[in-house]
Amino acid sequence: MGTRANGALAPGAALAEIETPALVVDHAAMLRNIARMAGHAAAAGVRLRPHAKTHKCAAVARLQVAAGAVGVAVQKTDEAAAMVEGGIGDVLVTNQVIAGPKLARLAALATEARIGLCIDAAEGARAASAAAVAAGSTLDVLVEIEAGQRRCGCPPGAPAAELAALVDALPGLRFEGLQAYHGTAQHIRTPGGRADAIAGAGRAVRETLDALADRRLDARTVGGAGTGTFALEADSGLWNEIQPGSYVFMDADYAANHQPPPFEQALFVLASVISRRPGGHAVLDAGHKTAAIDSGKPRPIDLMAEVGEVSDEHIVLAAADALPLGAPVWLTPGHIDPTVNLHDRLIVVADLDRGAGEGRVEAVWPVEARGACG
Amino acid sequence: MGTRANGALAPGAALAEIETPALVVDHAAMLRNIARMAGHAAAAGVRLRPHAKTHKCAAVARLQVAAGAVGVAVQKTDEAAAMVEGGIGDVLVTNQVIAGPKLARLAALATEARIGLCIDAAEGARAASAAAVAAGSTLDVLVEIEAGQRRCGCPPGAPAAELAALVDALPGLRFEGLQAYHGTAQHIRTPGGRADAIAGAGRAVRETLDALADRRLDARTVGGAGTGTFALEADSGLWNEIQPGSYVFMDADYAANHQPPPFEQALFVLASVISRRPGGHAVLDAGHKTAAIDSGKPRPIDLMAEVGEVSDEHIVLAAADALPLGAPVWLTPGHIDPTVNLHDRLIVVADLDRGAGEGRVEAVWPVEARGACG
Repeated sequence: MGTRANGALAPGAALAEIETPALVVDHAAMLRNIARMAGHAAAAGVRLRPHAKTHKCAAVARLQVAAGAVGVAVQKTDEAAAMVEGGIGDVLVTNQVIAGPKLARLAALATEARIGLCIDAAEGARAASAAAVAAGSTLDVLVEIEAGQRRCGCPPGAPAAELAALVDALPGLRFEGLQAYHGTAQHIRTPGGRADAIAGAGRAVRETLDALADRRLDARTVGGAGTGTFALEADSGLWNEIQPGSYVFMDADYAANHQPPPFEQALFVLASVISRRPGGHAVLDAGHKTAAIDSGKPRPIDLMAEVGEVSDEHIVLAAADALPLGAPVWLTPGHIDPTVNLHDRLIVVADLDRGAGEGRVEAVWPVEARGACG
Repeated sequence: MGTRANGALAPGAALAEIETPALVVDHAAMLRNIARMAGHAAAAGVRLRPHAKTHKCAAVARLQVAAGAVGVAVQKTDEAAAMVEGGIGDVLVTNQVIAGPKLARLAALATEARIGLCIDAAEGARAASAAAVAAGSTLDVLVEIEAGQRRCGCPPGAPAAELAALVDALPGLRFEGLQAYHGTAQHIRTPGGRADAIAGAGRAVRETLDALADRRLDARTVGGAGTGTFALEADSGLWNEIQPGSYVFMDADYAANHQPPPFEQALFVLASVISRRPGGHAVLDAGHKTAAIDSGKPRPIDLMAEVGEVSDEHIVLAAADALPLGAPVWLTPGHIDPTVNLHDRLIVVADLDRGAGEGRVEAVWPVEARGACG
């Protein structure tokens, strides 16, 4: 990698030595975010299992665990493998896994770490059981219920309890509890709208807990929650494990919530001006291959300029008269998770002062699970 | 990678052994696309320099050169490095490069391959010259003119000729000609609209050629064109080098053009059903971390189903009653370039018959320049 951009970047380098475009982490802000969420979970008396789909980086996961997290959540089996390889001993796949080869890898990981997954159908339960039996390991299972997002999840109440009973009876599986995640609630703009959505999810949880009690089954864990709603679940008396991810870095989409989550922007796309046009337009060396646009365009900070066209490798800024060729431009990503997934590494900077152009490279962390879509 | 999805996949494997989600290349269709574009360029008497930003894969580039291409175009300096490392001897960066470290790497590459770049400002020309002089190499320069896209490019006519004269005078640079690429024209839906846009770009080229003649400067190369308009530039009598990229794989956005380009869909996202909901909804194990959505959602093929929500790792299909858990679903990406950029490898399949579920893995190619955003 020495012949590639930032391939030779080492701790101690100055901010100006970072080639653009790059993902730059404000080390101090990230640590404050990690501590703040850990403190909130502790105060509320719930377990914290941060979602590693956001950062896909074992170094970040280790800091979260060191601050009190019980482990991490992931979305894909390859992310689980990367986290176990990176030293995380407790990993939950908050997703359905159906394919035999993936279940076999999860069952193998379960011989060296605690591995959980979500299940929403009997067929998935039987496949997971067979894989665990073959590997001689045990997989923890959360029965995922439909909690308002209308994506994965079996119907709450009796159907979920019936599935839980099957899981409880199958060899190689341990029924651990329920997964009740309302993803679309995270970005409902108004606090009242978010509260209504999580109240609805809570009714689904309550109905399912009652149905489990009828079968004398106990849900040791009720998991869910994201950065937009975690305080609601934590204070509900129903959920006892929260799984927020974005709080560690934050993004423009969360900042657009009314009463946004109490965390700092800690990750930036650092770009540069590579072309200028008459009329005050500047063109940056970053596009949507560098900063994901599924939830809105990246936003320049610390300057007045308007984002125009965003193409694969370019962003056009209007009203950017003050920016000469080569000028650095700091951008807040629209959506942090898919943005990190575009990059091979995070450049962690200590003592960052964007306005003064100061800071020094603290570390360069590989994004081990980047591209782990399997 | 043996512990990751498809990490152990080897030539000769059956189609059913490919884990999802995966990028699958129809080998025969890709070869027909490569031959068809090469034949068109030869018949029109223009050079073909396929754009490697689409595939970022040296194996594909080598096939294109073997079929008659003069070399490849790239968009980033790290892509140029990957292509030279992969055995391509003639690489043009169709972009502005301002930063000293990047220019130094390009100048170093120019000691082992023919390396060109685009320049639209005197400051960029002087920086490139300094890098080439320091490396003892020569960089070919195309002066990029604004050809209608309103992104990079200096004004056509006298300003471009003045910049060309500077390039011609600076040590370490060789003035090679003009770059006139109209990116947004590629996806104008109507043939008439595309023809009007390229006619406008042609007037900018003509005006600049006249201004160059006034300065007794000769443009040996006039480059540009993409998959949506290449026939217009090739038949114009102005451009003598076409640089299309998407034709090798194609995508849904190009297919939406009226009178779309005459190439076959040769790359697919292969996904599977991981969850089902009442009402005929199926949830796939692919989302926009697997298939880019900047130019529209991926589209299922070979089946009647409607694409609903596309989130990071899921696609919800409506009217998908016929799809059981685990069923494979073939998707056409909305936009091929950023989709390939999400993946580490292309799984090349021979004798592909999607309907019969048949085919065998011909090769697994690394996407060497994936994530090369520097």
